[in-house]
Amino acid sequence: MFAEILREIVDGTAGGVGAVLMGYDGIAIEQYFKPCDGVDLQMVAVEYSNVVKEIKRTVDILNTGAMEEVAIKTGRFYVIIRALTEEYFIALTLQRDGNFGKGRYLLLRDAQKLVAALS
Amino acid sequence: MFAEILREIVDGTAGGVGAVLMGYDGIAIEQYFKPCDGVDLQMVAVEYSNVVKEIKRTVDILNTGAMEEVAIKTGRFYVIIRALTEEYFIALTLQRDGNFGKGRYLLLRDAQKLVAALS
Repeated sequence: MFAEILREIVDGTAGGVGAVLMGYDGIAIEQYFKPCDGVDLQMVAVEYSNVVKEIKRTVDILNTGAMEEVAIKTGRFYVIIRALTEEYFIALTLQRDGNFGKGRYLLLRDAQKLVAALS
Repeated sequence: MFAEILREIVDGTAGGVGAVLMGYDGIAIEQYFKPCDGVDLQMVAVEYSNVVKEIKRTVDILNTGAMEEVAIKTGRFYVIIRALTEEYFIALTLQRDGNFGKGRYLLLRDAQKLVAALS
């Protein structure tokens, strides 16, 4: 169920290379990765969980409303993160020339489905 | 010089509430904030410097190309962060109903000017 949603998001986004459904503790529930030269996408996901945890902590402290979405652009990739519940988030990685808007849309579209399945 | 650029970015973005030019060590070079109910924007900026430092560290480890831009959406605000040099970044905060695209464009447009002034 989770695997199918992740695959649909990655394959439905031009330039999509992987998606992971993960806890803020860095433990993945499910993931789907295409092979990607020179980058360990599994490690990318785990490292980003630290970042997301730090952002969530900051947002909670600052009382600026719940964290909803984070987008990170690096020289090679976009990473789009969407908060799902108090415990889980989904992260999508795509190539820099990929369709960022489509990826963001698919994450938003499937968020409710994932939240329902998680609870 | 820095103050003027920050003010132009904030005032030029519908919903803009503040911008800060800051080091990854959390020390601001310059900042420009409009009054904003119930939120200490100065504190927002300092807290986000920890987040940005963590993201930069992660991106460096992962060898996925340099960090260029980070966008964070919370219940009340957008925060858009643009890396300038190895030491400095600029962060723009705007209301959720503000013009995200315009803010991002202005940060990108003025990045080279800021980099030149910093070096």
